[in-house]
Amino acid sequence: MKSDGSSKSDARTKIGYHTKIPRRTHLESLQSGYLFPEISKQEAKHAQNNPHAKIIRLGIGDTTEPIPDIITSAMAKQVYSLSTVQGYSGYGPEQGNKEIRKAIAETFYQDMGVKENEVFVSDGAQCDISRIQILLESSLSAAVQDPSFPAYVDSSVIFGRAGNFQAETNKFRDIVYMKCGPENDFFPDLSATPRTDVIFFCSPNNPTGSAASKQQLKKLVEFAKANGSLIIYDSAYATYITDDSPKSIFEIPEAKEVAIEVSSFSKFAGFTGVRLGWTVVPEELLYSNGYPVIKDFNRIVCTCFNGASNIAQAGGLACLTAEGYKALRTAVGHYMENAKILVDTFASLGRKVYGGKNAPYIWVHFPGLSSWEVFSQILKKTDIVTIPGIGFGPGGEEYIRVSSFGHRESILEASRRLRKFL
Amino acid sequence: MKSDGSSKSDARTKIGYHTKIPRRTHLESLQSGYLFPEISKQEAKHAQNNPHAKIIRLGIGDTTEPIPDIITSAMAKQVYSLSTVQGYSGYGPEQGNKEIRKAIAETFYQDMGVKENEVFVSDGAQCDISRIQILLESSLSAAVQDPSFPAYVDSSVIFGRAGNFQAETNKFRDIVYMKCGPENDFFPDLSATPRTDVIFFCSPNNPTGSAASKQQLKKLVEFAKANGSLIIYDSAYATYITDDSPKSIFEIPEAKEVAIEVSSFSKFAGFTGVRLGWTVVPEELLYSNGYPVIKDFNRIVCTCFNGASNIAQAGGLACLTAEGYKALRTAVGHYMENAKILVDTFASLGRKVYGGKNAPYIWVHFPGLSSWEVFSQILKKTDIVTIPGIGFGPGGEEYIRVSSFGHRESILEASRRLRKFL
Repeated sequence: MKSDGSSKSDARTKIGYHTKIPRRTHLESLQSGYLFPEISKQEAKHAQNNPHAKIIRLGIGDTTEPIPDIITSAMAKQVYSLSTVQGYSGYGPEQGNKEIRKAIAETFYQDMGVKENEVFVSDGAQCDISRIQILLESSLSAAVQDPSFPAYVDSSVIFGRAGNFQAETNKFRDIVYMKCGPENDFFPDLSATPRTDVIFFCSPNNPTGSAASKQQLKKLVEFAKANGSLIIYDSAYATYITDDSPKSIFEIPEAKEVAIEVSSFSKFAGFTGVRLGWTVVPEELLYSNGYPVIKDFNRIVCTCFNGASNIAQAGGLACLTAEGYKALRTAVGHYMENAKILVDTFASLGRKVYGGKNAPYIWVHFPGLSSWEVFSQILKKTDIVTIPGIGFGPGGEEYIRVSSFGHRESILEASRRLRKFL
Repeated sequence: MKSDGSSKSDARTKIGYHTKIPRRTHLESLQSGYLFPEISKQEAKHAQNNPHAKIIRLGIGDTTEPIPDIITSAMAKQVYSLSTVQGYSGYGPEQGNKEIRKAIAETFYQDMGVKENEVFVSDGAQCDISRIQILLESSLSAAVQDPSFPAYVDSSVIFGRAGNFQAETNKFRDIVYMKCGPENDFFPDLSATPRTDVIFFCSPNNPTGSAASKQQLKKLVEFAKANGSLIIYDSAYATYITDDSPKSIFEIPEAKEVAIEVSSFSKFAGFTGVRLGWTVVPEELLYSNGYPVIKDFNRIVCTCFNGASNIAQAGGLACLTAEGYKALRTAVGHYMENAKILVDTFASLGRKVYGGKNAPYIWVHFPGLSSWEVFSQILKKTDIVTIPGIGFGPGGEEYIRVSSFGHRESILEASRRLRKFL
């Protein structure tokens, strides 16, 4: 047994018993730390150096507004029923309760032909992305929007489909990075994109805030279909769309043959800590041998997962009642007003600003500057935490992502500081 | 687009678009269905054929007793606080809140030197088993107790370390099955067990109900250490132990160098539907290259999981207060009295009965009979659902598992029917 102090020394210098279990080579190629914990560390360091700073967090996209009473009441009712003989229930179906699967199909996929048995309720979209990774052979190739939410690349690294990290390009060797910027209306140039087995696509995109149009998604589905590729579509921010951009890939009818959609109650209902999401796997989606993907996904859900919390599910069901849904629009509206304040702030500073219209994220351009440097300067000068764009891929360099999740007074204070110090 | 009816026809005969995504060969070798859904199907069929039957479910080990008020009150308080500006919180730490990690370390690992940062709070032990599988190269070999909880083998199949299923032995080619029966006091003969990289070990064992003694666990740890193997120890039923059997592998000091422990609030607190568990990864556990396993597990938790529900965590914390813990002992005592009734029932029928002393499962021997046949006969004659032992591995043939989770009147009624009709 080693002394307590040894845990702080460099791991590789430890003297102690070693098992014969090799470390997975894929894990060795993961970069310095998952982006969000890394940001938290930098923030903690800043707070330590500046104990009186009133830090405003516009970094990690974490909801801040209370959950409407109608929804917490439904959860509390479920909680109390667990204390009664009549109301107690144990394991539910691994795929989620029938009522909420049905309500999700009807609320978000009306007229798209998504059936309740194609909806799998989960503890969140990020967790479902890894469950989908379990489905796939590690030899399959993958493409991501560049920039995009880091979990697609990081989970691809963990599951062994990314290859080595190339420091000179800031890319993993076997991942195809589909550049999305103002020059292509934040939609990849598919004519220049090589075929991959899997295409991760997030719309509205995190971090750019850009939502793909129906015409663009049609092209994406055609591209996938021509290549026999699988689209893993992340619609976690769909409820923030204000224009006529599709809220689901399944608004394109043929998408059911090539796409899985993951989504979430996190940003829509303030459930980031409650944990509730879902995945739609259409029956029409078939492997090359004709076997339905839904059957394997169901098996993985039953073996590697055991269903979302019954309390969270009761809350989710309340979100999808007419009254609950209406109450949630208020919070979404609040964050989108915040977005407008932040867009105006950066625009007034002469910056090119994207996003903030169909998503609660603002994507600000700082031409010629390193995004980590911009992040550090903003933190230093204004005590505001943002996210350096490069954390979302090499295409995010020169940008920062600013989240509009926050109380109004924080957003206004952030706006004042930015106007004054930047 | 296909007609709705097509989903019921054989999948392989479907005419439709096929992607070029190959089905994972490992998934093809999974057997006819995860055990518990399979049992549910058989039960549903029986109910359909016998619409007036009053079925008693002693199959799937699902808790039935209400959760004590002190625990649901704590969850309701957390729920209501999410409706207030002051009380709202979003994402928590992926590893779980500090308070509950500390309380778990202090409650379950006192004097074992487990530190709070070694405790990872999760949505359940079964989910954590798959997260541990993500850690490991698919080429690593694995051993399981035979019989044992099917998730160890099934997740090993999904992650590609099981090899093909051999119908003649009812085993997967690359899994080592460590026979545990009355002839060896339900502890494997390690002198005859080949080295594997990973050893799954559940104590008290599900389904046999047998808890390993301190002497036996010492042997297991020595065996792992001599081989450089990793023990994945499942202590989900530890709170049911009534004798001096260890409640954690970490009662053996050297285990910290070779073991990960997964555990759960499900059976201890009636949280099967609430979803809360934990995993302990000791800092002393090192890969062959000396790198700490805990660092990779932390990374997987951050990337592939996003923390347990904050409501479930509030409940879990209440379980670990003096008052909460005491209230839970009542439910555990209730199930163990049920166990005694069932043990006596089968003994009175002249059956050899095991378990029921340190775990809520009864393991009944029917020499010379097929366990599915015994399952079917009991269901047919008594309308009682049990589990055929073979569902837990070939070593479970000739046995059935009977769960003692149930209301007292159900258990007494089950006892009457068994005495009358069997």
